[in-house]
Amino acid sequence: MFFAAKPIITLTTDFGLGDPYVGVMKGVILSIAPDAAIVDITHLIQSHDIVEAALVLRSSYSFFPAGTIHVVVVDPGVGSCRRPILLTTEKYFFVAPDNGVLSPVHKLAHHPEVFHLTATEYFLKPVSNTFHGRDIFSPVAAWLSKGIDPMQLGKRISDLQELKIRLVRKIDENRMIGTVLRTDKFGNLITNVSKQELSLPGKDRVPFVVRIADKTITQLRSSYAEAAPGELFAVWGSSGLLEISVNQASAAEILQASKDQEFVVELRQELESANT
Amino acid sequence: MFFAAKPIITLTTDFGLGDPYVGVMKGVILSIAPDAAIVDITHLIQSHDIVEAALVLRSSYSFFPAGTIHVVVVDPGVGSCRRPILLTTEKYFFVAPDNGVLSPVHKLAHHPEVFHLTATEYFLKPVSNTFHGRDIFSPVAAWLSKGIDPMQLGKRISDLQELKIRLVRKIDENRMIGTVLRTDKFGNLITNVSKQELSLPGKDRVPFVVRIADKTITQLRSSYAEAAPGELFAVWGSSGLLEISVNQASAAEILQASKDQEFVVELRQELESANT
Amino acid sequence: MFFAAKPIITLTTDFGLGDPYVGVMKGVILSIAPDAAIVDITHLIQSHDIVEAALVLRSSYSFFPAGTIHVVVVDPGVGSCRRPILLTTEKYFFVAPDNGVLSPVHKLAHHPEVFHLTATEYFLKPVSNTFHGRDIFSPVAAWLSKGIDPMQLGKRISDLQELKIRLVRKIDENRMIGTVLRTDKFGNLITNVSKQELSLPGKDRVPFVVRIADKTITQLRSSYAEAAPGELFAVWGSSGLLEISVNQASAAEILQASKDQEFVVELRQELESANT
Repeated sequence: MFFAAKPIITLTTDFGLGDPYVGVMKGVILSIAPDAAIVDITHLIQSHDIVEAALVLRSSYSFFPAGTIHVVVVDPGVGSCRRPILLTTEKYFFVAPDNGVLSPVHKLAHHPEVFHLTATEYFLKPVSNTFHGRDIFSPVAAWLSKGIDPMQLGKRISDLQELKIRLVRKIDENRMIGTVLRTDKFGNLITNVSKQELSLPGKDRVPFVVRIADKTITQLRSSYAEAAPGELFAVWGSSGLLEISVNQASAAEILQASKDQEFVVELRQELESANT
Repeated sequence: MFFAAKPIITLTTDFGLGDPYVGVMKGVILSIAPDAAIVDITHLIQSHDIVEAALVLRSSYSFFPAGTIHVVVVDPGVGSCRRPILLTTEKYFFVAPDNGVLSPVHKLAHHPEVFHLTATEYFLKPVSNTFHGRDIFSPVAAWLSKGIDPMQLGKRISDLQELKIRLVRKIDENRMIGTVLRTDKFGNLITNVSKQELSLPGKDRVPFVVRIADKTITQLRSSYAEAAPGELFAVWGSSGLLEISVNQASAAEILQASKDQEFVVELRQELESANT
Repeated sequence: MFFAAKPIITLTTDFGLGDPYVGVMKGVILSIAPDAAIVDITHLIQSHDIVEAALVLRSSYSFFPAGTIHVVVVDPGVGSCRRPILLTTEKYFFVAPDNGVLSPVHKLAHHPEVFHLTATEYFLKPVSNTFHGRDIFSPVAAWLSKGIDPMQLGKRISDLQELKIRLVRKIDENRMIGTVLRTDKFGNLITNVSKQELSLPGKDRVPFVVRIADKTITQLRSSYAEAAPGELFAVWGSSGLLEISVNQASAAEILQASKDQEFVVELRQELESANT
């Protein structure tokens, strides 16, 4: 594993910004690893929403330098028998509860290893039943940043909890059902449809329309600004997923759509020149 | 006083995150102390709510390394005659207006010393009447992090402003009235009832019920996840205070309860085996 | 140009705090410049509000040490032909889209130079059409912090996009129309009226009244706390602009006023002793 010059620890939680929980985690980290650079990904994950945390992590972790330690604490099972785990990949460490939140990253990794964190000497004492972000995940991340070997932190396991994320479902050769995964601050609807899904044998990409709510979207734009104000359009977002957007307005509001909303994508082989 | 390798300055304010006020404070600090690590506790204290700031500080300061400088700016009296002060304890520095916000920390400290900040050469010039977070508290914290002696910053005082925090009131030998201090992002009601209050002569802990709104809570759980979904229960929170919670839902919403809500705790000596 | 010991990069965006966009920018910066100290000014600029971003930047940039790199990403034109630019002044660097957001800072600068960022070798590859905060502005800021010469990043230009900010308009010798620029978290109405505007030939400052909504404000207070609770008053805010405020309450709520609200300021030469 290659290490960054300065250890970086990122935090993704559902703790919000109004309570002292995030500050406390940082205090614990800096007490052990005063040189760590701590970066907030977000603390506004909807309470207990493991899927949202997994998606946010998946679209951000790879932009950090090798050696970065990503901590995720969305942990409805805190205090129960769910395991605290460490996932190591070729470039990164991930510290989180074993509730599925690391499963998308695990799938993308080349040589992932997972450890059940059992070495209580690296925890804060006493470990509470309600705040493992403070008592387990933060101190373990801090010790990792100081070079502690993962083997010292627990024992290797192979049965990582799987996450159920909605996949695109085919209706027939030309139609599929996609799902809105999340809405961003601009009201863009970020979907689970990736570029591969809109290709066909022998064709890199095909034209398509999106039917969502009672609207039909025929325009694929290459940027938000390319669209006319008020126009509904599709665009390939910065994470490589299809987004449904409105230029300088909120698609979520206009369509009254949000997370879990389904829609139909219809490939249009005969219209190939229309909207590529 | 023992100093951390890298000086840490924490910020707790009611400035919000949409205005430039917090960024400006950080600019002032880094202009004086470029190596300071600045950690946000929260900036979402309700405007002018000194009690909330005091509670947030009390539950977070002790997780930071020795030598940390805690800055609190909830300051409805800015520009008036209220004094800017520095509190030093065995491990920490606290910089804040003298409006009671430091009083709980002061009570917990072993050898506290309080200084009225009068040495204007450590302030930004000119000092405005509306933003002492920028003009007084940030630069003083930055100078402290560079090793300036508290004696140089002002003169010792002994009449720190007291904070009125609601205490638990006894009704009779077995009943007391507690108060909700705050609601966290999950909707947990954090109360002013600590473990000591639920002990009896010769007994470390006794069973109890909580009567709040028109509900009676009989379950004391050891973690959020231990409860059935939808169940109202009590739990000892991560700060050692009694919380009223619902597993994966908001107790605050379900009970329509918030800050300052009172409730009755009834000790149940005869039921000792029921809910410990 | 004088450089700070440790390079500081500030971020001002409309990305919000719930999405991974800001975290991703930080990851990109730290991948190139691991020693950079990144400071958030705010990420809660109203989506696409270039004027708000310009105002926030103008009231915060000068509190940072010389050499600080200020990155602003409020970028409704991302992916269009609007240029990514670098503005250098005697003390600072500013990296932003050329949409007017840097125009107030440019006007205040002594020897400003503007560069069209064209050196794609300092961008992330491939550059998306939807997230130049990640692909252009963050990496350029990071390279600047490592000492890359602005001349290497692009070519000098002289036609910076102007920003339309509402100016104070004179009605007659004694009356002018001001505008609320923004509301802060406390409900203070921050206006576009500066101290110079309320002077008269031979007089440094004159008394005045403000007529806003259906209220007349006659009190000019020197601090928020000086006013009686509930009293509407004017005060010179910490950025040198006139604010309309209520002590411990929200002027915005009480007046039902917000951004773009106009009001009349009436100079009162005959009342000179009344409210200075």
